[in-house]
Amino acid sequence: MSIKGNAVIGQSGGPTAVINQSLVGCVEGLLGKGFDQKILGAHHAVRGIINEDFIELQDIPQDRLNHIADTPSAALGSSRDKPDDAYCEKIFHTFEKHNVRYFFYAGGNDSSDTCRIVNEKAKEAGYELHAFHIPKTIDNDLVCNDHTPGYGSAAKFVACAFMGDNLDNRALPGIKINVVMGRHAGFLTAAAVLGRHGENEGPHLVYVPEANFDSVKFCEDVERIYSKLGRCLIAVSEGIHDADGTPMAAKLAIQQGHHVERDAHGNVQLSGSGALGDFLSQEIKNYMGKKTRVRADTFGYLQRCFVGCVSKTDQVEARAAGRTAAELAMSGDIDGSIAIQRTSDEPYTVEYNRIELGDVAAKTRHLPEDWIVDGNNISEKFVQYATPIVGPLPPVEFLRKH
Amino acid sequence: MSIKGNAVIGQSGGPTAVINQSLVGCVEGLLGKGFDQKILGAHHAVRGIINEDFIELQDIPQDRLNHIADTPSAALGSSRDKPDDAYCEKIFHTFEKHNVRYFFYAGGNDSSDTCRIVNEKAKEAGYELHAFHIPKTIDNDLVCNDHTPGYGSAAKFVACAFMGDNLDNRALPGIKINVVMGRHAGFLTAAAVLGRHGENEGPHLVYVPEANFDSVKFCEDVERIYSKLGRCLIAVSEGIHDADGTPMAAKLAIQQGHHVERDAHGNVQLSGSGALGDFLSQEIKNYMGKKTRVRADTFGYLQRCFVGCVSKTDQVEARAAGRTAAELAMSGDIDGSIAIQRTSDEPYTVEYNRIELGDVAAKTRHLPEDWIVDGNNISEKFVQYATPIVGPLPPVEFLRKH
Repeated sequence: MSIKGNAVIGQSGGPTAVINQSLVGCVEGLLGKGFDQKILGAHHAVRGIINEDFIELQDIPQDRLNHIADTPSAALGSSRDKPDDAYCEKIFHTFEKHNVRYFFYAGGNDSSDTCRIVNEKAKEAGYELHAFHIPKTIDNDLVCNDHTPGYGSAAKFVACAFMGDNLDNRALPGIKINVVMGRHAGFLTAAAVLGRHGENEGPHLVYVPEANFDSVKFCEDVERIYSKLGRCLIAVSEGIHDADGTPMAAKLAIQQGHHVERDAHGNVQLSGSGALGDFLSQEIKNYMGKKTRVRADTFGYLQRCFVGCVSKTDQVEARAAGRTAAELAMSGDIDGSIAIQRTSDEPYTVEYNRIELGDVAAKTRHLPEDWIVDGNNISEKFVQYATPIVGPLPPVEFLRKH
Repeated sequence: MSIKGNAVIGQSGGPTAVINQSLVGCVEGLLGKGFDQKILGAHHAVRGIINEDFIELQDIPQDRLNHIADTPSAALGSSRDKPDDAYCEKIFHTFEKHNVRYFFYAGGNDSSDTCRIVNEKAKEAGYELHAFHIPKTIDNDLVCNDHTPGYGSAAKFVACAFMGDNLDNRALPGIKINVVMGRHAGFLTAAAVLGRHGENEGPHLVYVPEANFDSVKFCEDVERIYSKLGRCLIAVSEGIHDADGTPMAAKLAIQQGHHVERDAHGNVQLSGSGALGDFLSQEIKNYMGKKTRVRADTFGYLQRCFVGCVSKTDQVEARAAGRTAAELAMSGDIDGSIAIQRTSDEPYTVEYNRIELGDVAAKTRHLPEDWIVDGNNISEKFVQYATPIVGPLPPVEFLRKH
């Protein structure tokens, strides 16, 4: 063990169904290695750190820890703040003041960047700090990782929703659009195909941000499927954009004269509105005729924290990622990010490896090009990749005419 | 047993997570009583009957029946047709042609009315027909029933979604609106409160169609909660309407110059659009300031057929309702509708009683007035009523500052 001091754990960005597994894994990892100082949970992430607003975690009984781990969303609270250099300076000062020597931050690529900057500040000041980033994002878009904690459970939600909606759409045929989260990466939208059984089952079309979106091509695709099957189920990522890179969601907001809302990262609001789905419905009606039955659902925030729809693999891996970060931090004067890396497909096995903070920070991974078919569907390669991460889906049985 | 002849089973209206339980229960009930003629599943409900489009069900092995029962949505397919007198005449002619003597129709109050009319046509013609309506609706709005098959599972989905979204909203505070299905009855929207733990947990406000909706009052309510808690989670039924009875969804569609889509029953389109949620978001922003963070999700069709979120009680009762209909039909020259009636709260027990088709046809049950609090919340009486129907919800654990 290195220098004596307290630990801070924070949970950042959009919550997931398993981010509390990582929190608890981290606490368990510290305690398991004999850590005997304070474990401070930062209340609402970086904001809690600069406000010195902490929840002590070192004395929580194991059964309560287990219940917290199984609860979706960030138990410590999260924050939308994107710390700049001055903000990171404040974080570092809190650490000095509270003799914090271990810093664990669960989040996406922005969070790993925060970790990196705070870590550099400590180094510059000659202050021993063990900073670890714990991966988390339902978007599954962290580089160096085979996949990220949070993705498997959100993907399971999307897969189960599409299985149900395909059955619904078979019973009452029509055109149905479902908008799925994912600003830059299509992994979550691709999960729509995981429960697809048979070639005429939905989703029949899948649009991800990795392929440029063309409204006319979209309408042609839908009409082709609809005239063949009498129905069409469509998965659309909220992040679809046209050939010049403008998100459709931003485009239509401007068209409709709406104020375009942006977050601290400069991102246009995509989630929490049905506008994109409704716009695409209207496009199809304009193309195919007003009387065409078109419906759109936007899955929205349900995808990330629905209670009772979780991937066991995701739970286990999120816990292990947190635990590994703690154990590595306790093993010497090192820092880094934990990356989940697949070592075998059959049987499915992964390793939790340390990578440099700079390797993962502020970069985005995308769906491989050859997993996208004709710009409007997802290949079997994705299914092979995602199935062990998502785990078994509930079985369904069809009644077909002989 | 009465006269020899074939049986027809149909599944009507919006699918549910357990309508296939009723289908299978009905098949099991017939076979269990020694029925040895054809059991014809009507492909897409009444439309399948008039088109003589049937799927034979009498020889399906039990394990396949079990898998079908566990699969959400209507395995036979459903239909949006609302049969008028001439349509029912055609149904009756198909029955004569195929020597159909047993007719089972699972659906809501419109479906029971179809059953009633066809039954009367048979009586007028002196044709022995045993027509039974099997209750089904996620809206839970059939009279004479304590509750209806399909409701428990949809209510569980809504409860789990709100539990997760409350955790999400705690982690990243803001104003969040969730629009829930339910045109005339607020039972499904009320289910939002079933997983509510503690007085400051969401949903903080619940709006059902049984109380008139006033936009100004709504904004005042939201601002009051938001200034107290720094967040506000809101459940809104898609069927909310103003004091003169105009649905908000229809009102805003007209405001926006959209074509107002109506179904065969004359109902305005409510589901399959995010417009109502987006409109309410805008109302709050107009009232509280443009920079207020407001998000809206519309749960949409996910509520009725999501794979993997089902109430065990709902499954068991839907199966029993189908079985009881079959057994009663085989017991003599009778017809009717099956009503689920509660006989005890503690322990929870129900009976499946025969009622007259005319008793349930084309009537709507509403949330009792004293289950609605101040026009913007739901009382503990509802929780006591709904808990055994929905069954246990996944546990969640909070981390609170001491």
